[in-house]
Amino acid sequence: MSAANATPLLSAIDCPADLRKLSVEQLPQLCAEMRQFLIDSLAVNPGHFASSMGAVELTVALHYVFNTPYDRIVWDVGHQAYGHKILTGRREAFAGNRKLGGLSGFPNPDESIYDTFAAGHASNSISAALGMAVASRLKGDSPRRNVVAVIGDASISGGLAFEGINNAANTPNNLLIVLNDNDMSIDRNVGALNSYLAHLNTSKLYNDIRYKAFKLLKKLHLVTESRRVALLRFNNSLKSLLAKQQNIFEGFNIRYFGPFDGNDVATVVRVLNDIRDMEGPRILHLRTVKGKGYHPAEADPASWHAPGKFDPVSGKRLADRPSDGKPLKFQDVFGNTLVELAEKNPAIVGITAAMLSGTSVSAMQAVMPGRVFDVGISEGHAVTFAGGLAKDGMKPFVAIYSSFLQRAYDHIIHDVALHRLPVTFCIDRAGIVGEDGATHHGVFDLAYLRTVPGMTIAAARDEHTLRNLLYTAQDGDRGPFAIRYPRGSGRRFDWRNEMHALPIGRGERLADGSDVALLSLGPVAYDVAEAIAQAAQKGVKTAHYDMLFLKPIDEQILEEVAAKNCPVITVEDGIIAGGLGGAVAEWFAEKGLHRKLLRLGVPDKFVPQGTPAELHHMCGFDKDAIFDAIMSVTSNNSQA
Amino acid sequence: MSAANATPLLSAIDCPADLRKLSVEQLPQLCAEMRQFLIDSLAVNPGHFASSMGAVELTVALHYVFNTPYDRIVWDVGHQAYGHKILTGRREAFAGNRKLGGLSGFPNPDESIYDTFAAGHASNSISAALGMAVASRLKGDSPRRNVVAVIGDASISGGLAFEGINNAANTPNNLLIVLNDNDMSIDRNVGALNSYLAHLNTSKLYNDIRYKAFKLLKKLHLVTESRRVALLRFNNSLKSLLAKQQNIFEGFNIRYFGPFDGNDVATVVRVLNDIRDMEGPRILHLRTVKGKGYHPAEADPASWHAPGKFDPVSGKRLADRPSDGKPLKFQDVFGNTLVELAEKNPAIVGITAAMLSGTSVSAMQAVMPGRVFDVGISEGHAVTFAGGLAKDGMKPFVAIYSSFLQRAYDHIIHDVALHRLPVTFCIDRAGIVGEDGATHHGVFDLAYLRTVPGMTIAAARDEHTLRNLLYTAQDGDRGPFAIRYPRGSGRRFDWRNEMHALPIGRGERLADGSDVALLSLGPVAYDVAEAIAQAAQKGVKTAHYDMLFLKPIDEQILEEVAAKNCPVITVEDGIIAGGLGGAVAEWFAEKGLHRKLLRLGVPDKFVPQGTPAELHHMCGFDKDAIFDAIMSVTSNNSQA
Repeated sequence: MSAANATPLLSAIDCPADLRKLSVEQLPQLCAEMRQFLIDSLAVNPGHFASSMGAVELTVALHYVFNTPYDRIVWDVGHQAYGHKILTGRREAFAGNRKLGGLSGFPNPDESIYDTFAAGHASNSISAALGMAVASRLKGDSPRRNVVAVIGDASISGGLAFEGINNAANTPNNLLIVLNDNDMSIDRNVGALNSYLAHLNTSKLYNDIRYKAFKLLKKLHLVTESRRVALLRFNNSLKSLLAKQQNIFEGFNIRYFGPFDGNDVATVVRVLNDIRDMEGPRILHLRTVKGKGYHPAEADPASWHAPGKFDPVSGKRLADRPSDGKPLKFQDVFGNTLVELAEKNPAIVGITAAMLSGTSVSAMQAVMPGRVFDVGISEGHAVTFAGGLAKDGMKPFVAIYSSFLQRAYDHIIHDVALHRLPVTFCIDRAGIVGEDGATHHGVFDLAYLRTVPGMTIAAARDEHTLRNLLYTAQDGDRGPFAIRYPRGSGRRFDWRNEMHALPIGRGERLADGSDVALLSLGPVAYDVAEAIAQAAQKGVKTAHYDMLFLKPIDEQILEEVAAKNCPVITVEDGIIAGGLGGAVAEWFAEKGLHRKLLRLGVPDKFVPQGTPAELHHMCGFDKDAIFDAIMSVTSNNSQA
Repeated sequence: MSAANATPLLSAIDCPADLRKLSVEQLPQLCAEMRQFLIDSLAVNPGHFASSMGAVELTVALHYVFNTPYDRIVWDVGHQAYGHKILTGRREAFAGNRKLGGLSGFPNPDESIYDTFAAGHASNSISAALGMAVASRLKGDSPRRNVVAVIGDASISGGLAFEGINNAANTPNNLLIVLNDNDMSIDRNVGALNSYLAHLNTSKLYNDIRYKAFKLLKKLHLVTESRRVALLRFNNSLKSLLAKQQNIFEGFNIRYFGPFDGNDVATVVRVLNDIRDMEGPRILHLRTVKGKGYHPAEADPASWHAPGKFDPVSGKRLADRPSDGKPLKFQDVFGNTLVELAEKNPAIVGITAAMLSGTSVSAMQAVMPGRVFDVGISEGHAVTFAGGLAKDGMKPFVAIYSSFLQRAYDHIIHDVALHRLPVTFCIDRAGIVGEDGATHHGVFDLAYLRTVPGMTIAAARDEHTLRNLLYTAQDGDRGPFAIRYPRGSGRRFDWRNEMHALPIGRGERLADGSDVALLSLGPVAYDVAEAIAQAAQKGVKTAHYDMLFLKPIDEQILEEVAAKNCPVITVEDGIIAGGLGGAVAEWFAEKGLHRKLLRLGVPDKFVPQGTPAELHHMCGFDKDAIFDAIMSVTSNNSQA
């Protein structure tokens, strides 16, 4: 690293104002130091690596040119924002990144004044930044407050980003949209817009000429708002002369600049200075390299998106693997099972929204690519597209993380459930996900899906039930079928069971007892079993049922439980209001049956980052909390 | 009408196969007859008028050229699909349009094999049609099955449509997208894409030349899939020669044809025949006139979108108005109140998603247009944009119909609630809406919003509580605040009360009694009051509480109710699972209190079209059902 030969710079930067004291010539050194800092930090504290590596120069240039925090930078998906955290007073705290009580892995307004908006779900930056730009204009902020949205080429393919651009073009504002184009989402990008962006890069001649013309006009003080329309016309006629191709963004009347090399910090600073004070919405297109500056990541950016621990010198990955003594991840059990089912059932197709490897739909992609559809970051489209496929005879399996599936709530209702279409929702990362924190916990799915008429909702307890549920879902005319399973691994090494169909809406009694009845959903059954064993040592006999299905709920079990006339506890890895606890409370109320009911799960608040174990404890549904609950309902049990 | 002089045609058409027996020369007469049929029908049975009038030729041409129902037509938003219903065996049944047991006002696959997909929420046609096109390809349908998505210029501005186009461009398919461009949504269109479409229309020379070149190539059998890429290049170089402007769609590598006169049936038939068998995704751009063929509607298409009853000859509107003896609509109470509040509170801004008049945000638009934002059909953006505005100090009031707000569920969670931003959700058309049917009932909002941490959820009982809730919401740092109110009018003529702040989470006792306690939310309080009066005549004394807030729920009231030790009934105009009934059941369970609980509201199924009174009866929460509930819980009340 070149940084080694000069006085270190990064260690003296505690806020962007410090950064702005440097000369432009010093910035490459600072970027190199930041890269080394990221490598050294993330090698031991796993996080999102490659995106932030690619965005180092962009980050430095933005804080160098703009007067943050007065000016606003809105990051789209926080993957790229580690450099931003390091430059904004959180360098020392960075060791606590993604840890309980430490830094959030994404920009978080509760954490820093420099973090302007939540950035865990893709494509929201343009809309949010437009709101800030309009607010500033309405309030008459003086001096002018600049607002910058930084969006990746994958995020910009989301419908929300399109809606934002569409609105930005026709609303008075001075928004600057920086398109950080590394030709990657987490996996390689798909979709027409990305083909377009790739093509755009070839039109250097036109853009060079236009940019020079623009600079000249600016120097001559000819660039004013009143001349904007004329200027657009000028641009368009220039384009007519040169036209190698069309520019989508200027079709929207948003001025477009680029593409420029986004890993050349001097270039980015120069261009940002040139366009900073212009009026009206603008798009700056920067080409960057994901993983830039670290050879292993540049060579394989997808797998270095969030690599886990690694050796910083050799690039050897130290991440947890099945061979490290853990069972296969749930997502891989799903991916392998999908292939097994699809091989026998030609109606099955696999759909993912830019998460081929994240959901392990990649397993099916590898062997039957013609039946797998990666639709890009567009969860709504993924679901409606599945509705169309199902309407004409296919059996789509749509694999989306629980938290991201929220964006398709309406599509699930209107485009699938309304006509009872046989779409299987494979809801990965359901429940507390751990280090990705509040924006990524998949805790709402049980409650919001339960509102949907005709929706079958199931939760896998382990690898075998996951496989049996997938097997069950492919069959039949029962309409939409949701199957949730958590992030990471379960406990079974013998995951590949002989699959069989499960009866819809039937749970399983896992243990009998008469002092307490415990109803659980999902892999928390294992913690429940341990708590029950512990309580048994205290002489408390607990019946345990894995409900397996939230909807339809197993009324035979509920009747069996009611007949026991003992206290009832529900445990779920999801928000309690409206979930399993809610369904059981409603059932007892509806039947006019009166049992003491204690409901454990995620409380009515947003849960921060931490390890799953820490967060289960915080929420009050880890093994100890379940044990305490059992003991508490039995110790003062008089009214059941 | 020219139809008067010839043998009638429409009366002999019972299915599209009959239509296809006509000559092209007969089609203009058929179109004229269809227009007259629509005018005569809708004058007495109100429905969506202007859109279907504009789409007559397009509808006839599609069924004439395509082999429906084998070929698929997917309508985007059913407003335009009345002609389609008339041609597909439902001419006689059309008198029952939008009535209970009659036709749905939107395409409905449960109603006809010709209705391929649900079309109540905008922008879904391209995604659904792409699914069908891909399904057909995977199944190897022979002969080739054509799939056509028909989308308006307003719907195409939705993010979902963009996601669909983006995916269609990069997935092997033969989808034809027909853009029915009348330069209107329900109100006049907004957004960059629409400016673009308007501009596109001027480039007739280029398109004429290109179309003729295309036809020539086709005649010479030079248009094959293998030549498609070359052809695209040809198109682009042709464009370079002529280029007046750029074409967004071809930026996406989707072949574009148009614009053509979509009200010239011979032209539309000719073009459809020319492009029908081409390979790959295509967009056909048709310019049509909303309300075409009926002068009053052509002159004022927005107010003729759904005009209510009218005199077919004079065009005089017979719709219900305040002067007809009904109080002001809730939406107008909202609109007027928003203006009152905004005049005093400069932080307030109004946001609507293509429903300026539908939500009456138009009232604020009229007097302070700079603080009103019509963002087009993009509910997700509307909410995230509001989040950005709120983050920088504004108080956005976002007015969206309940059913359409479903599409912003994730944005509410991630872009507003997560950071407790003070956005007020003004949820119009909440509860059963009546004739618009299953896709439009706003019955999920209570349940899905209750899952959101930190969300305040209130329901207006009447005009005064609506105003007080709006007044309350503008104030403070309590984060997101949802206020729901129904379609149509309430019962108060004296709507303009002196507003005052309401205590958050506090309901009101409207009547006292000790035999039954009844908890309601929203205007159903009036039906409850009548049922209580009726029960009082039978000697049953019922306490009645308007909860006003679903969240936080009024625990003082719940404790007061519990202390009565009598049966409890909840009534809500929304889905019961997870709503008010769910919240009350959960509270009693949590407290270990045992009261008989009966929950009235919308059951766990999709509710069809009908009058609100009919549907309240069907769902079991009209006055009679409430009375029956009161009597039933008191007659066999032993366990309370």
